[in-house]
Amino acid sequence: KDKAALEEGDDLTPRFDANGLVTAVVTDVADGTVLMLAHMNAEALSKTLSTGIAHYYSRSRASLWKKGESSGNLQTVHEIRTDCDQDAIWMKVSVSGHGSSCHTGHNSCFYRRIETGNGTVRLVADAEDVPRFDPDKVY
Amino acid sequence: KDKAALEEGDDLTPRFDANGLVTAVVTDVADGTVLMLAHMNAEALSKTLSTGIAHYYSRSRASLWKKGESSGNLQTVHEIRTDCDQDAIWMKVSVSGHGSSCHTGHNSCFYRRIETGNGTVRLVADAEDVPRFDPDKVY
Repeated sequence: KDKAALEEGDDLTPRFDANGLVTAVVTDVADGTVLMLAHMNAEALSKTLSTGIAHYYSRSRASLWKKGESSGNLQTVHEIRTDCDQDAIWMKVSVSGHGSSCHTGHNSCFYRRIETGNGTVRLVADAEDVPRFDPDKVY
Repeated sequence: KDKAALEEGDDLTPRFDANGLVTAVVTDVADGTVLMLAHMNAEALSKTLSTGIAHYYSRSRASLWKKGESSGNLQTVHEIRTDCDQDAIWMKVSVSGHGSSCHTGHNSCFYRRIETGNGTVRLVADAEDVPRFDPDKVY
């Protein structure tokens, strides 16, 4: 695939890595919050496109992962994009169930800011992004 | 590192992969657009935290990459977060120079939507995200 077609063409030709995966970044269609990063293989991308519901590849389980199948927090895809070199996907989604995309119960996996100062680095959790479910009860 | 400390603690303990990298997602602090995905090694993360300017690790060049050093499109970091298992970073940035984060000159690397319908899949470029510079003149 030549560079011009890859970067400027209208054919979707994902550049899967050595493990057959592309990285997907997932944002909340309503407010732009980055909810999570995950990976997709060809099957997950295909299922996502055909159903409009986000599917990923679980590296830990080595299998197709319909996000929210256990917890009820399915992600409906409102828009899906690829990047210049087609090795990444960006999806804008809305989340059903508890409205949470993190296995911890938080809305977003990115519930902690990194703060620096006085020669230290520390994580500070968002006061507003409290867990929406108890993982011990849902999984 | 136990799971509770990793997920709920206030210590930054990035889980670099086998290549020593974490994935960074970069959004526009003003409007939430996902500008790019990139990778950071420990040095790139440290430089980003100490300078407030985004640094990455270039896998193609196998070296530290101060984004925008050639093109002038430096990224100033307004907020930086990590995710539940600390293998990803989310940064909200503002971009100087042309205000472009993609080597193609586009504002965002994600300048093409994936559209489906009538049994086809195709990429559709955003009319509004026209290239802001000519890569052949800048690089």
